[in-house]
Amino acid sequence: MLNVIKIGGNILDDEKVLFKFLEAISKLEGEKILVHGGGKIATEIGHKLGIEPNYVNGRRVTDADTLKLVTMVYAGLINKNIVAQLQSFNCNAIGLTGADGNAIIAKKRPVADVDYGFVGDVVAVNGLLLKQLLYAGITPVLVPITHDAKGGLLNTNADTIAQEVAKAMSQYMEVSLVYGFEKDGVLKDANDDSSVIPVIEVNDFDQLVADGVISGGMIPKLQNACSAIRAGVKHVIIGNALQLNNIINGEKGTIIK
Amino acid sequence: MLNVIKIGGNILDDEKVLFKFLEAISKLEGEKILVHGGGKIATEIGHKLGIEPNYVNGRRVTDADTLKLVTMVYAGLINKNIVAQLQSFNCNAIGLTGADGNAIIAKKRPVADVDYGFVGDVVAVNGLLLKQLLYAGITPVLVPITHDAKGGLLNTNADTIAQEVAKAMSQYMEVSLVYGFEKDGVLKDANDDSSVIPVIEVNDFDQLVADGVISGGMIPKLQNACSAIRAGVKHVIIGNALQLNNIINGEKGTIIK
Repeated sequence: MLNVIKIGGNILDDEKVLFKFLEAISKLEGEKILVHGGGKIATEIGHKLGIEPNYVNGRRVTDADTLKLVTMVYAGLINKNIVAQLQSFNCNAIGLTGADGNAIIAKKRPVADVDYGFVGDVVAVNGLLLKQLLYAGITPVLVPITHDAKGGLLNTNADTIAQEVAKAMSQYMEVSLVYGFEKDGVLKDANDDSSVIPVIEVNDFDQLVADGVISGGMIPKLQNACSAIRAGVKHVIIGNALQLNNIINGEKGTIIK
Repeated sequence: MLNVIKIGGNILDDEKVLFKFLEAISKLEGEKILVHGGGKIATEIGHKLGIEPNYVNGRRVTDADTLKLVTMVYAGLINKNIVAQLQSFNCNAIGLTGADGNAIIAKKRPVADVDYGFVGDVVAVNGLLLKQLLYAGITPVLVPITHDAKGGLLNTNADTIAQEVAKAMSQYMEVSLVYGFEKDGVLKDANDDSSVIPVIEVNDFDQLVADGVISGGMIPKLQNACSAIRAGVKHVIIGNALQLNNIINGEKGTIIK
């Protein structure tokens, strides 16, 4: 089983937490692909460089300076430190943007009501490259930066990268898509951390939304999960990245299947 | 024949020059590995971040902030833009630090009269990985950042990286090591760009130094070239990176053999 694991800021922002997480990843049996975005450090470095988050009509956009910033911080600083740390745990990792090995091609999002700038929507994942790396015992560590095959880099949502990679790899092997975040799973009551829903069946999803059991920001996340499963991904796990082993073996978190 | 090509600031600092160089690289027949350092952009971004070049006893040292800076700028900004540009020329490039795929392990330089900080001397090059990538039709684009296998990244001289990679690859194939720089080759008279020495035989090197034909900063560069040849590299070319084809086919530049 291939685990495609996406982690967010709550793991990246704390050096000790990241260290423990990477140790857990390295001990995980079987093949894995890690997807990471940025964290507070990107905002901090941007601030020092005078590159502030840019919003148009309330939507975050990627201008040329922001693209440079994420390329430096995500693909450089964060990615290479993660890869070096994994190597120290005898996990032979390789850091990749979508440009590396032509891993992920994207298309610049067309300008409609908002010009998102240098934002890319995934066109194709090079599953063959990722498969060859995995079979060579190498763990890809993906940065959510893609390329347009015309020389340009594009900023792409990390959740989407994880989902598209999981879909593409399900052609070759059984894939579990794992979204690690700061909560213990999908909660019935957003204010009660113990109200984790352990299992969500794809076919029940619409009813759960209609009944108000699933609401808010979880709806798009779960819609993506359902779409991944319909595209061949075995199941999707949403849970606390700090409990990696427990969520992967089903003891904790939410499994969507 | 594998060409291991190292380029410096004169190529990286000018977007149009870099574009033309990468186009030439992509058209080059046979296998190639590119090695690039930084350029003015690293100094500029460092300046904005308050990270200034640090010297101890006249020697450049790599403190923790400088290591972060080069990791961001070399491995992130510069490397990923080069890789994306090569992809646009249908050259399937992959950017690598020494940590990626365990490509190059180094050892932190011991503190003697100078503490160089996070500077690494190469211990081992993973020639097998590079060979597998080349055989898969992929062009490695190497950043002069290595790892110590204990989770740490280290700054390493780009000329040295090119030399060590060339040596390691000569186990598997014929290797030409190409140092692209701003001059047209090794000059008899440093002030006369037309005084290029076309051929230097390794066995004549000591005599040429004794006779004063080779002097100054060229001596260590050529000592490294001779050492590479003694270690199995077929020949070393030193010439203007803007004349890539001409120096590789022997029309221009200096060939050491």
